[in-house]
Amino acid sequence: MKALLLVAHGSRRKQSNDEVVMLADKLKSRTDQYDVIHAGFLELAETLIPDGIKKCVDDGASSIVVLPYFLNSGRHVIEDIPEIVNQAKPAYPDVDIRIAPHVGASEQMMDLLISSANATR
Amino acid sequence: MKALLLVAHGSRRKQSNDEVVMLADKLKSRTDQYDVIHAGFLELAETLIPDGIKKCVDDGASSIVVLPYFLNSGRHVIEDIPEIVNQAKPAYPDVDIRIAPHVGASEQMMDLLISSANATR
Repeated sequence: MKALLLVAHGSRRKQSNDEVVMLADKLKSRTDQYDVIHAGFLELAETLIPDGIKKCVDDGASSIVVLPYFLNSGRHVIEDIPEIVNQAKPAYPDVDIRIAPHVGASEQMMDLLISSANATR
Repeated sequence: MKALLLVAHGSRRKQSNDEVVMLADKLKSRTDQYDVIHAGFLELAETLIPDGIKKCVDDGASSIVVLPYFLNSGRHVIEDIPEIVNQAKPAYPDVDIRIAPHVGASEQMMDLLISSANATR
């Protein structure tokens, strides 16, 4: 059973966090490649990453892809998220937990940017 | 002559800002829809948005699309960027300056996320 954990930074602004949760829900309706999709946050918001991993496992995940919803490859992407994920791993020795490339690293970003620019009114 | 100004938040970390500048350059090599493409920053980094707009105009732009490289529709996207752009407009009455939807609002984000998740090793 495959799970996807969409991880954003987390904001003091509730609406920003809700957007990420809604995005995770929307993603669930768009793909059948993942049986379980949850949102998680690095800080400032619930669900935090370790709890997000736990939610995926509780839902029956045998593998979890942690997908950093970040544009830049800053400290959060390079150090913080891997560290938190690595700390969580020993609790679930039978679950394959991996981190995906962050969103800003995607080659598809070019097309997305051009399409957003063209959507200007 | 059409210009695109890719606007990111700006970081204290030089590498993050360089990534945005490189992204703007890469974008330039990917599309011929915009004659001029520059990067600009809301704060903490050069070039700031007003100077980015000036650069586009100096390069001959008759229209400028300001594209917010932001995932969430927070205060920066909703208030700060429009305010800065509106303050800059009167200096260039002959230039059509518009703001594109922010990156996180793109419908293509779903496909990008799934593709990033699938790129996990």
